[in-house]
Amino acid sequence: MVIFAWLSTRQGNTVVYYPNRILKGLEPWEGGSRTRNPFAWIKEALSSTEQDVISMSGIDTAVYFVFMSTVLGILVLSGVILLPVLLPVAATDDAIRKHSGQTTSNGTFSDFDKLSMANIEKGSLRLWAFVACTYWVSIVAYILLWKAYKHVSAMRANALMSPEVKSEQFAVLVRDLPDVTPGQTRKEQVDSYFKSIYPDTFYRSMVVTNNKEVDKIWGELEGFKKKLVRAETIYAESQKSGGSEATRPTNKTGFLGLCGKKVDSIEYYSEKIQELTKKLEAEQKVTLREKQQRSALVFFTNRVAAASAAQSLHAQMVDHWTVMEAPEARQLIWSNLNLKFFERITRQYIIYIIVFLTVAFYMIPIGLISALTTLKNLRKYLPFLKPIVDQDAIRTVLQAYLPQLALIIFLALLPKFLLFLSKTEGIPSQSHVVRAASGKYFYFTVFNVFLGVTLGGTLIDTMKTIQDDVKGTPQLLAKSLPGNATFFITFVALKFFVGYGLELSRLVPLIIFHLKRKYLCKTEAEIKEAWLPGDLSYATRVPNDMLIVTIVLCYSIIAPVIIPFGVLYFALGWLILRNQALKVYVPSYESYGKMWPHMFKRIIAALLLYQLTMLGYFGVSQFKFTPILLPLPISSLIFAYTCSKKFYKAFCHTALEVACQELKQTANLEQIFKSYIPPSLIADKQEDEQFEDAMSQVSRSGSFV
Amino acid sequence: MVIFAWLSTRQGNTVVYYPNRILKGLEPWEGGSRTRNPFAWIKEALSSTEQDVISMSGIDTAVYFVFMSTVLGILVLSGVILLPVLLPVAATDDAIRKHSGQTTSNGTFSDFDKLSMANIEKGSLRLWAFVACTYWVSIVAYILLWKAYKHVSAMRANALMSPEVKSEQFAVLVRDLPDVTPGQTRKEQVDSYFKSIYPDTFYRSMVVTNNKEVDKIWGELEGFKKKLVRAETIYAESQKSGGSEATRPTNKTGFLGLCGKKVDSIEYYSEKIQELTKKLEAEQKVTLREKQQRSALVFFTNRVAAASAAQSLHAQMVDHWTVMEAPEARQLIWSNLNLKFFERITRQYIIYIIVFLTVAFYMIPIGLISALTTLKNLRKYLPFLKPIVDQDAIRTVLQAYLPQLALIIFLALLPKFLLFLSKTEGIPSQSHVVRAASGKYFYFTVFNVFLGVTLGGTLIDTMKTIQDDVKGTPQLLAKSLPGNATFFITFVALKFFVGYGLELSRLVPLIIFHLKRKYLCKTEAEIKEAWLPGDLSYATRVPNDMLIVTIVLCYSIIAPVIIPFGVLYFALGWLILRNQALKVYVPSYESYGKMWPHMFKRIIAALLLYQLTMLGYFGVSQFKFTPILLPLPISSLIFAYTCSKKFYKAFCHTALEVACQELKQTANLEQIFKSYIPPSLIADKQEDEQFEDAMSQVSRSGSFV
Repeated sequence: MVIFAWLSTRQGNTVVYYPNRILKGLEPWEGGSRTRNPFAWIKEALSSTEQDVISMSGIDTAVYFVFMSTVLGILVLSGVILLPVLLPVAATDDAIRKHSGQTTSNGTFSDFDKLSMANIEKGSLRLWAFVACTYWVSIVAYILLWKAYKHVSAMRANALMSPEVKSEQFAVLVRDLPDVTPGQTRKEQVDSYFKSIYPDTFYRSMVVTNNKEVDKIWGELEGFKKKLVRAETIYAESQKSGGSEATRPTNKTGFLGLCGKKVDSIEYYSEKIQELTKKLEAEQKVTLREKQQRSALVFFTNRVAAASAAQSLHAQMVDHWTVMEAPEARQLIWSNLNLKFFERITRQYIIYIIVFLTVAFYMIPIGLISALTTLKNLRKYLPFLKPIVDQDAIRTVLQAYLPQLALIIFLALLPKFLLFLSKTEGIPSQSHVVRAASGKYFYFTVFNVFLGVTLGGTLIDTMKTIQDDVKGTPQLLAKSLPGNATFFITFVALKFFVGYGLELSRLVPLIIFHLKRKYLCKTEAEIKEAWLPGDLSYATRVPNDMLIVTIVLCYSIIAPVIIPFGVLYFALGWLILRNQALKVYVPSYESYGKMWPHMFKRIIAALLLYQLTMLGYFGVSQFKFTPILLPLPISSLIFAYTCSKKFYKAFCHTALEVACQELKQTANLEQIFKSYIPPSLIADKQEDEQFEDAMSQVSRSGSFV
Repeated sequence: MVIFAWLSTRQGNTVVYYPNRILKGLEPWEGGSRTRNPFAWIKEALSSTEQDVISMSGIDTAVYFVFMSTVLGILVLSGVILLPVLLPVAATDDAIRKHSGQTTSNGTFSDFDKLSMANIEKGSLRLWAFVACTYWVSIVAYILLWKAYKHVSAMRANALMSPEVKSEQFAVLVRDLPDVTPGQTRKEQVDSYFKSIYPDTFYRSMVVTNNKEVDKIWGELEGFKKKLVRAETIYAESQKSGGSEATRPTNKTGFLGLCGKKVDSIEYYSEKIQELTKKLEAEQKVTLREKQQRSALVFFTNRVAAASAAQSLHAQMVDHWTVMEAPEARQLIWSNLNLKFFERITRQYIIYIIVFLTVAFYMIPIGLISALTTLKNLRKYLPFLKPIVDQDAIRTVLQAYLPQLALIIFLALLPKFLLFLSKTEGIPSQSHVVRAASGKYFYFTVFNVFLGVTLGGTLIDTMKTIQDDVKGTPQLLAKSLPGNATFFITFVALKFFVGYGLELSRLVPLIIFHLKRKYLCKTEAEIKEAWLPGDLSYATRVPNDMLIVTIVLCYSIIAPVIIPFGVLYFALGWLILRNQALKVYVPSYESYGKMWPHMFKRIIAALLLYQLTMLGYFGVSQFKFTPILLPLPISSLIFAYTCSKKFYKAFCHTALEVACQELKQTANLEQIFKSYIPPSLIADKQEDEQFEDAMSQVSRSGSFV
C-alpha cells in the first residue's frame, strides 16, 4: 500500500494507475492537483456510489461489487454473533486438555485450537450453541442473497431500459439456417423469412461470413502499418538528432527479422501495405460473396420486437432458425456462429466430460510428466542442457523443484485451457465463454484445493469404505476438517496480503510498462498499447473469491477465528477493486449482469457444502440431536429453486416491459447495423469514418448486406 | 362383433352408434341405405384417411392413431424377424428337458415354455441370436418413433397454420397480475400494460372473474328450465290423450321431490325461473364488478403477435405477468386461474408426493379398510344390515368378496382421483389435466400391474438385498420374468377380446340409453343428452395401451409368442377405434397433438425397461458378452434427448413461421372475444344469438370487458 501511495503520485505512472479514467477522457485525479493525500483513494473508493461504478465500468463490475458486499455482509453478520458466542463457549471447555494423552500424538494443539469446536466435549450440551449458530449463518445468507438477487435484477432492468441506444438491443442472432433453395441467395432467404413474420418491425439482415482468411490478411496489414509508423518515427528521430545524414531504418525480410535480405524499412513496409491492401480488398469481396455461412444477424426497428423475437420459437423444427439475443458486436465470436445445433450440444457434452476428467484426474498426467522429466532423462534426451544441469547448485535446485514445476505450469495454464475449452463448446459470445470457464475453474479449485487438502491422503485409503457407504462422506470430511483449520486461515491471510498488495500496487504491469517504454515502444500507439489495462478477468477472479467463501463458510462454526480473516479479505478486496474498477480496468464487454446467477449458484453450493459438513461434524461429535440440522440443506435447495424461478429467466432474456421503455432519441438503424460489421470487412478507405459517413459502405458491401 | 353388426343396423340405435356423424349433421350411413353389409364398417375404417379422422375428430384423435400405428409397426416389424428366427432357435435347444430334474419342481413347463428363451442352455452360443434381436427391436423402435414424431410435428404445424380462424390462436392467458394501484381498475391496469408493449397488435382484454356463485345460480336456472320443458311436454301429452281433463303435472318442493308441499309444476318452475333470472342478473353484475381476479385473457389482432407474446417474458420478476397460450374456451378451467405462481408450483410438488405415495403404498389403506369392513364389524356398526348379512348365501359371498371389494372400488375410482389431483395442481386447461392424469395412471399401472405381478412376493423378501445392491434389480426382474410369460399373454388376449368387444358393440351405453329413453326422457333435449357420447378419454385409454406396450416389449425376446397377441391387440384396436372415432366419439377439446410427447416419452420408458430387463436376463443366462447390450439403454437416452431437443419445443409453443400463415378471411375479433365469455355470464336474453348479434352484449358487460 505504501508502495502504491508513493508510486501512484508520480507523473510517469499515471497511465498505469489511472488508465480507465484517461481512456474516458477524464483527468487522472479528480482535483487535478499533483500534491495530494496519498490515501485519498481510500476516501474516493468509499464515497463512490454504485452509479459511479456503473458509469465508469459497467453493470458487470457493479454486479461483482454486489457479490463482494453480499459475501462481506454474510461474514460480518455471522461474525458479530459467532465470535462473542462461540469463542467463550469453546474456550471454557477443555476437552483437549482432558484427552491430551490421546490427541497430542496426532499433532500439536496450539492456542488456536482451544478456540475451535474441537475443544468441546463430545456430546456436550454446549453443542446447542453451535447448532443455533449454524442456523444463524444460513438465515443471514438467505436474507442477504435474496436482497442481492432482487437488487441485481433491478440493476439489470434499469440498464436494459436505459434510454440510450444500444446496438445489441436491436439485433438478434439467428443460427442453424436451413439449406438455401436453388436460385436464392442466403440473404434473400433470411430477408423473406423474417419479413413474412415481422412485416412491420424487420429492418435488415447481415449474413455471417467465414472471416478467417480476411482476418488474417487484415491482421498482417495492421501489423505492417504499425511497423511503418515505427520506422518513420525512428527515422524522424534520427533526422532530428543526426541532421541530414540520418540513417534510414533497415530490417531483414527473413524469419523474425533475424535473417534474409536487408531492406529499407519504410519502403519495404509501404510496398507490403499496398500489396496487402489489394489482397484484402479482393479477399473481402470473396468473403462477402462466397463465404457466407448458416447464420445471420437480424436487425429490428425497435427493442420490443428484437427482445420478443429472441425469445420465440421460429421454426417448427427446433434445430432450424434458432434465434437468440445478439451479444455486443465486440464480444461476438464469429468463428463459432456456423456450428450446427446438435454439433453445439455434442461439443458441450464432450467438453463437460473432458473437464470432469481434468478436475478428477489432473494429477495423473502431471505425475507422468514429472516422472519423465527427471534430471537423468533431461540429460539423456536434451544433451545440450548437460553443461548447465551438471553444475552443482543448479542441479540441487532442479532436483528439488522439477516435480513441482510441471504442476505450477499446469496451474498457470489452466485458466487459459478452460477458456479454450469453453470457446470450443461453440458459445457465440465472449462473456458467456468467460462465465462457462469461471464455472469450470470453480469446480476445479473447490474440488482440488479445498476438498483435496482437507481430505488429503485419508480419502484414497478409505476409498473402498466410501463406495459402500456414500452417507459416510460428510463424516469423513468432518473428521479431517479441524486439523486443517490453521492451514486455511494462513491460506486466506496469504491470499489477501500478497494478492491484493500486488493488485493495488500494480507492480508487475508497472515494471513491464516501464521496460517496454524504455526499450521497445517508439510510437504513441505502441506506448498506449503498453499501458492498456485488461478487464477484471472474472474467469479466474470469481472462482478464487468463491474458494475463499467456501473455506470461510465451512470453517465458520468449527473455528470461528477464520471469520475476521474472511471479512478482511472481502473488505480489502472491495476497497482495492473499487479503486481499480474506477481507475484502472477497462471492461472488455458488457453482459448486463448475466454473471450474477452463476455467482449466486456457487454461493449456494458453498452454503450446501457448509451445511453438509456441519451435519457430518455434529455426527462425529456424537451430538444426539444432529438430525435437527437436516432441514438446512433442504431449505437451501428450496431457496435456490425459488430464487431461480423468480429471477433467473429475466437474466436469460430481456423482459418485454423493460424493452418497451421509450428511447431518448430515435435509433439510427444504419449505424446500429454498421457497428456489427467486423473491422476486417470494412473497406480500408473509410476505416476511420465508418460511423460518420458510410453511405458508400452500404453499396460496397451490397452482396453482404 | 356379431352383436355389433346386428345392433348397429337397427334404426333406433343409430344415435348410439353414429352420434358423431349425426352431431356433424351427416347421414349416419354414407350410402343412406338401410340394408347394408354388416361388415362395411371394416372397409370404411380401413379406407379412411388421416384427413378424415382430423376433420371428423380432430388432431388429438389423429395423433392417437399415429401412436397406435407406430406401436403396431414396431411389433409387426419385430415379429417378422423375431418369430422365424427365435422360435426355431429356442425350440431346438432343450435345456428344460435336460435339467427337468431341477426345474419341474418350480412349476410345470408347457409347450409354450419350449418356445421361450428359458429353453436355451445357459451360456450357449445361441444367445447371440437373441442379442441380435434385442438390437433389432430397438432399432426398429427408433426409426419408427423418429418418423412418427416428425409426422405428428408436421400434422400439428398444419393444423396450427390452417387458414380457419381459431379463437385460441388470437388470445393469451395472463396470470399473476400484480396488485392494482389505487384509483385504477384491473382492466385499466391490464390494458395500459399491454398497450405499452404492443401498441399496434393489442386488441382488448377480458379480466377473469370468480364465477363460482354465478355458475351455481346459472346451473340451477338451467335445471329448472329443463324441468319446465319436461313438465310442459308431459302436460301436452296428457292433453292429447286425455282431452280437456288433462292432469297438470305436480311435484313436491322438498328434498328430491319426495316430500314437501305439492305444487303445480309448470307454474312452480316458471316462478322459480323468473326469480332465478333476476338473481342471476344481479349476481352477474356483482361478479363482473367485484369478483375480478388476478388473471386475464388478452386478445391480439393477429396470430403472430399472440404466439410471440405467449412465449416471451413480460415482467422482470418472473412470477408476475406470466403469459401462456390461451387454451380453447371450452377447456379453460376458470377456477384455477387465480392461483399464484408459487402456489401453483407448491401444489404441483405436493401432488407429486401424494401420487408417489399412492403408487407405492396404495395397498396399505385398502388393506386397512378391508380389515375393518369384515362381516363382524359390519354387523356391529351397521345393525340394520343384520337381517341381510345373516342369510347364509349372502354371507358366504360377502365373506369371500368383501376384501376385494375395497380394491375394486379403489381401482374404479382411481382415474377420477388422479384427474382430481391433476386439476388441483392448478393447471388451467382440461387437456393438460388429462395429460397429467394419464401420466400418473401410467406410472401406477406399470409399477403395480407389471412390476407388481412380475416381482410379486420375491421383491419383499429380498428387499434387503436390493438396498445393498441396486444393480441387482434388473437381475431380480429378469429371474421372475419367464414364469409370468403365460400370465401376461393371457392378460393381453383378455384385454382385447373383452375390452374391444365391449368398445365396438357399445353394449353398456346402448342399454343405458334405451332404459333412459323408456323410463326417464320426455323431451327432445333429454333424449339427446342420453345418447350424447363422451370423448376417447385418453386419461385411461393411453396408459392402458402403454401397459400392453410395456408388457409385449419386455417379453418380446424372452417369449416371442407374445408378439402376435400384441399385434392383434393394436390392429384390432386401431380398426375398432377408427370406427368409433369416425362415428361415435365427440372430442371435448382440441390440444393440437400435445399428447404426443407424453406418449413418446412413455414408449421410450417402456423401451428402456425392456433393454434393462434384457441386460439383466442375459446376465442371469450366464452369457459372457452381456455388456454388449450396454450401448442400448444409453442410445435410448440419447435418442430421446435428441428427439425432445429437435421437436418438443414446437409442442409447447406455436412456432412463429407457423403462426404467420395467411388467414382465409380477416378474423372477426369481436366474435373471438365473445367466444371466451363463459355461458353463465352471458345475459339471458341474448343467450341463443350471442354470436350473431351481441352489440348490446358489449355494453352490458362493460365493466367486465
